[in-house]
Amino acid sequence: MHDTEGADFAGFHCPIPIEQYPRVLLAHGGGGRLMHQLIEKMFLPMFRNSRLESRHDGAVIEPGAARIAFTTDSYVVRPLFFPGGDIGTLAVNGTVNDLAMCGAQPLCLSAGFILEEGLPMETLWRVVRSMKQAADEARVELVTGDTKVVDRGKGDGIFINTAGVGALRHEAVVAPSSVRAGDVILINGDIGRHGIAIMAAREELAFENPIESDCAPLAGVVRELFDNGISVHCLRDLTRGGLASALVEIAEASDLHIRVQESSVAVHENVRGACEILGFDPLYVANEGRFVCFVSPEDAERALDLMRSHPLGRDAQIIGKVTDGKAGMVTMKSRIGATRIVDMLSGEQLPRIC
Amino acid sequence: MHDTEGADFAGFHCPIPIEQYPRVLLAHGGGGRLMHQLIEKMFLPMFRNSRLESRHDGAVIEPGAARIAFTTDSYVVRPLFFPGGDIGTLAVNGTVNDLAMCGAQPLCLSAGFILEEGLPMETLWRVVRSMKQAADEARVELVTGDTKVVDRGKGDGIFINTAGVGALRHEAVVAPSSVRAGDVILINGDIGRHGIAIMAAREELAFENPIESDCAPLAGVVRELFDNGISVHCLRDLTRGGLASALVEIAEASDLHIRVQESSVAVHENVRGACEILGFDPLYVANEGRFVCFVSPEDAERALDLMRSHPLGRDAQIIGKVTDGKAGMVTMKSRIGATRIVDMLSGEQLPRIC
Repeated sequence: MHDTEGADFAGFHCPIPIEQYPRVLLAHGGGGRLMHQLIEKMFLPMFRNSRLESRHDGAVIEPGAARIAFTTDSYVVRPLFFPGGDIGTLAVNGTVNDLAMCGAQPLCLSAGFILEEGLPMETLWRVVRSMKQAADEARVELVTGDTKVVDRGKGDGIFINTAGVGALRHEAVVAPSSVRAGDVILINGDIGRHGIAIMAAREELAFENPIESDCAPLAGVVRELFDNGISVHCLRDLTRGGLASALVEIAEASDLHIRVQESSVAVHENVRGACEILGFDPLYVANEGRFVCFVSPEDAERALDLMRSHPLGRDAQIIGKVTDGKAGMVTMKSRIGATRIVDMLSGEQLPRIC
Repeated sequence: MHDTEGADFAGFHCPIPIEQYPRVLLAHGGGGRLMHQLIEKMFLPMFRNSRLESRHDGAVIEPGAARIAFTTDSYVVRPLFFPGGDIGTLAVNGTVNDLAMCGAQPLCLSAGFILEEGLPMETLWRVVRSMKQAADEARVELVTGDTKVVDRGKGDGIFINTAGVGALRHEAVVAPSSVRAGDVILINGDIGRHGIAIMAAREELAFENPIESDCAPLAGVVRELFDNGISVHCLRDLTRGGLASALVEIAEASDLHIRVQESSVAVHENVRGACEILGFDPLYVANEGRFVCFVSPEDAERALDLMRSHPLGRDAQIIGKVTDGKAGMVTMKSRIGATRIVDMLSGEQLPRIC
């Protein structure tokens, strides 16, 4: 479990005097002295770096690459804290992973907070510490930010948006349009942990062995592939909509046929059990540390070995391949040999899982 | 007034079938078919560009400069529509202006929507059209985005986060740390319009001549200064906290004394009247199209001429100068010759004005 009370921050107390400001006030987003105090006492010392300390409207960076990747996500997860992470770890890793999926090395993040008036200051502090810890683990800096406060009843504690910039240090075009018939599809582990961890926390389900979110930064394992010359065509992390939606999107965007072997897609027995109780299909459940990787067939075995030698790819598998059969479709062959069409969900499975 | 029903979009109807989906559902943020439809039918055709159409987790861009600027802001303005703009124009111009204040030429934006379940689909469509119009005017592309939906009562219609990337095409370091004693301070127009326009819309105040927000993209007028070799030391747009807070922040960050002449700071008579009724000081009221510029004294007159020759700087003025007198302080000389200290507000003046 991600320990937000971890050793790095032992003895770190909330730098805003809690007796005086136990809760976030509208004025903490008003542009005056209180907002200034929040920035100077909490954000700057925590994320300390030269760009933040310039105290300017934005950060100036030198990416050191002609091509950069740029991405954003907002995080509205409920509850804010869950087994394996919290909204802060998610806000860092989610955007780091989107950069990694572009084939980029993450460089820096922005953070935009939308706080609800009345949020306990200690909760903000706990989330900010998690963000710092996650940023350090992912080796990115948080270089610019913004804080808004909305009136009580017009938000839900904390929403966080992060955007990210990464450097492309190779020539590959990593995108659905680069997928080719013959490509082999790899996954870095079992699926469904994040969604089930959130649902268990939300519904206060008591599992004997609680499932933790798989929330983790994927840039390191992706970098292994590029550094070793693997011909990576497309990458996609398996967040909202899960493995199924990611594959359908890529099949549609590339106009190719994706064929998956169900027996190769691992699901932890506790996740499978929870899915049965809750009526979910693990294929559609969100992950925050799993991705699929489309590579040239001649590189597939080497890519698998490279993934398996990284802590975040120990259980990597080849799950299927791309053909020019049924354009735009995903089909899955079951354990007993039947083939079914995998489609996107038409409705909502798990609201606010990220 | 910013015409959200403008000619460019005449005949453009909401591309989501309103009879079927009159309001935003949780599933529009769920990662399934409905979210896909929103992206494919509304966002992609509106903001059409090659990066968005790659349908990937982020955008790959070539900034064409070794140094880039990176910034973010969230927008929570209430009401969503006001004289002179709406949350969409604000979300584009606000971030474009933060890039301009870094001395950068804005290249592209991300957009993160946090929608409240039940938001009328037509409202979203109207805001999206405004964003497109503002992006075209500011010559930036919206290249990547994210949509989340929160349950009814946990948001407030629409919150938007935008982040931006811009290119630095000169060698200057534009930051409070570059401010020097002797620098001359210019402003590009009168102050207080945005905050008063919002308050008037919120309180349904009926002024004889309604004040419109000054919301506008400032990159063009800033670029004039750099292209003509003006030695620009610092730039700051006068948003939350207004002119006073911007100057106090720069005085504190540069540890220099900023002296301002009250008679040089223009305030429209309707803004002054509204401020008297509402009990506000125009110095602290937010703007969305005004900025201060710190330049070398030898460049001051030429900078003033350049600003005045641009539509967004017609009423530019020199408002003061920097000395090494009272370090970290801002003082203002009134029309009758008295000098007062200008400080940051300790509380909130106008919540949710941007």
